[in-house]
Amino acid sequence: MKVLFAGKPFERLIDVIKPVFRYHEIRIVDDKELANEIGWAEAIILRPIPFGEELLSRAPDLKLAQQWGVGVEGLDIEACTRHNVRACNVPSRGTGNAEGVAEIAVLHMMLLARRYARAREKLLQGKIFTPPGITLWKKKASVIGLGNVGHCVVERLQGLGMEVVGVNRDVSRGYKDWGMKALFPLEEIHKAVRGSRFVIICLALTPDTEGLIDEKVLQSMDRDSFLINVARGPIVDRQSLEKALEEQWISGAGLDVLWEEPPRVDDPILHDNSITITPHIGGVTDASMKGVLGFIVENVDRVAADRMPESCLNPPTTGQ
Amino acid sequence: MKVLFAGKPFERLIDVIKPVFRYHEIRIVDDKELANEIGWAEAIILRPIPFGEELLSRAPDLKLAQQWGVGVEGLDIEACTRHNVRACNVPSRGTGNAEGVAEIAVLHMMLLARRYARAREKLLQGKIFTPPGITLWKKKASVIGLGNVGHCVVERLQGLGMEVVGVNRDVSRGYKDWGMKALFPLEEIHKAVRGSRFVIICLALTPDTEGLIDEKVLQSMDRDSFLINVARGPIVDRQSLEKALEEQWISGAGLDVLWEEPPRVDDPILHDNSITITPHIGGVTDASMKGVLGFIVENVDRVAADRMPESCLNPPTTGQ
Repeated sequence: MKVLFAGKPFERLIDVIKPVFRYHEIRIVDDKELANEIGWAEAIILRPIPFGEELLSRAPDLKLAQQWGVGVEGLDIEACTRHNVRACNVPSRGTGNAEGVAEIAVLHMMLLARRYARAREKLLQGKIFTPPGITLWKKKASVIGLGNVGHCVVERLQGLGMEVVGVNRDVSRGYKDWGMKALFPLEEIHKAVRGSRFVIICLALTPDTEGLIDEKVLQSMDRDSFLINVARGPIVDRQSLEKALEEQWISGAGLDVLWEEPPRVDDPILHDNSITITPHIGGVTDASMKGVLGFIVENVDRVAADRMPESCLNPPTTGQ
Repeated sequence: MKVLFAGKPFERLIDVIKPVFRYHEIRIVDDKELANEIGWAEAIILRPIPFGEELLSRAPDLKLAQQWGVGVEGLDIEACTRHNVRACNVPSRGTGNAEGVAEIAVLHMMLLARRYARAREKLLQGKIFTPPGITLWKKKASVIGLGNVGHCVVERLQGLGMEVVGVNRDVSRGYKDWGMKALFPLEEIHKAVRGSRFVIICLALTPDTEGLIDEKVLQSMDRDSFLINVARGPIVDRQSLEKALEEQWISGAGLDVLWEEPPRVDDPILHDNSITITPHIGGVTDASMKGVLGFIVENVDRVAADRMPESCLNPPTTGQ
């Protein structure tokens, strides 16, 4: 297959991509050149960029539009279906992505629980046995969104001896085998977060979830609680969070995602003592790289052999 | 009971100690005054200070020498037995101490896995999706020392999806129900650490374990591995560790304990990029404070009622 990797950032991965795709022809193109080069492609590997009708109409040989990762905000699935192109993403759990994102959530929880920045200050002053922190053990956590990432977070928090409460749009499944103490529908998030020391956002960003964490939710949280966001920045209303921290409705926040990415270097949030931030690295791990790459090459192999790819997002009515 | 708290640092805790000990008389004395004040005491609560024959001979009414915590390096148990004083420590697991120490081990593992200091640098430069890190998920870890802390560490790493290998002086128990992949006696630590991405030290400091982690052990570790010490500084030979990092026998270290505590502020190790350090805060948590204080007041109550205290270290042949 002729496999086009869309975007310069793939060049940094060339040493890992090449051996995995050794039975295929590969090219990496800059986003600016994409319209000129897509005619060549039988499969395209996409970062989170807009991909729809205009590019598809220039790609007569294209059979597979494969997202690198879970989020397909930029991928026009209907347009792919019209052009008879399989639109696929990479499932999160089991490929290392959800597992890595869940670990970054735990890292933020521990950074906040142990007041890591303060601990470092104390250390450099030659002090020990300070600052006092809290354990995660025996504390209550609310996990908002029980998809792949949420599932991995629930497992890990239970392994740390926490009491976990779940919140999900769909509560019909019950999730009984997950061992959570309670399950709330998304509309009752205010009830769910009360009494939780940690609230962890694991939702997909949709028009419904944008701004979901607003003043009302933050005011429902305990004063000694922490908000963790490992999903997408805009699910939390920024002004509400800033007000919540300023007025001490909550004690702190841990963010692997921001509202503007990359952030402006003069954004004061980068220096806010009550917030720990990592640069969206939840899924940027060896396990995820190996898992995602393995999944994608398997899908390319399948399409090359005229078999159905996995994690295909086109509606099943289209003759798949 | 007349309960003497030995050492100024207890003054910081007076607000939590007072209500818990409301049915007892309490005094806090500076270490320098201890010899003059101990005659008053029926129970003494000890930090890690030397406590033996000389002080005991001045304490005719003393019935209980209660360590604040697990480590009894300073407590002369034989001398206590001779003076008919119960020598007790606080068990680690279940009181929040071992659980908290295990959590700080996980924190260090994650800081190193995600290159946290580097991630912060990248963030402040306005970069995202970098640096690449590793997951703990599916990696192998060796836990050295399977006491209370080791047990808590094993549980947590398994909850994170790691493959865990144990090393312990006594392997006769088998530890089969712990779900570890292998178990090695302490003499075979070199074999155990091979192939492990993380080696976590959870041993008590004894003449046998001092300097146990030497050049030979560090050379047996993988080049991409990390050493975590949440036990006591001197179990690791400092020069060997510095050489191992300098010559890249291993990739980094995470330390909650140091060779000299508190450290000198000009100690270059505090600024070493390959080492993460926290100021011995593993056990300094809300859970541990509550658990230790609750355990100690219960022991004081027991002795006051002429009952056996828990976690008593005198030999059972002394008529207990």
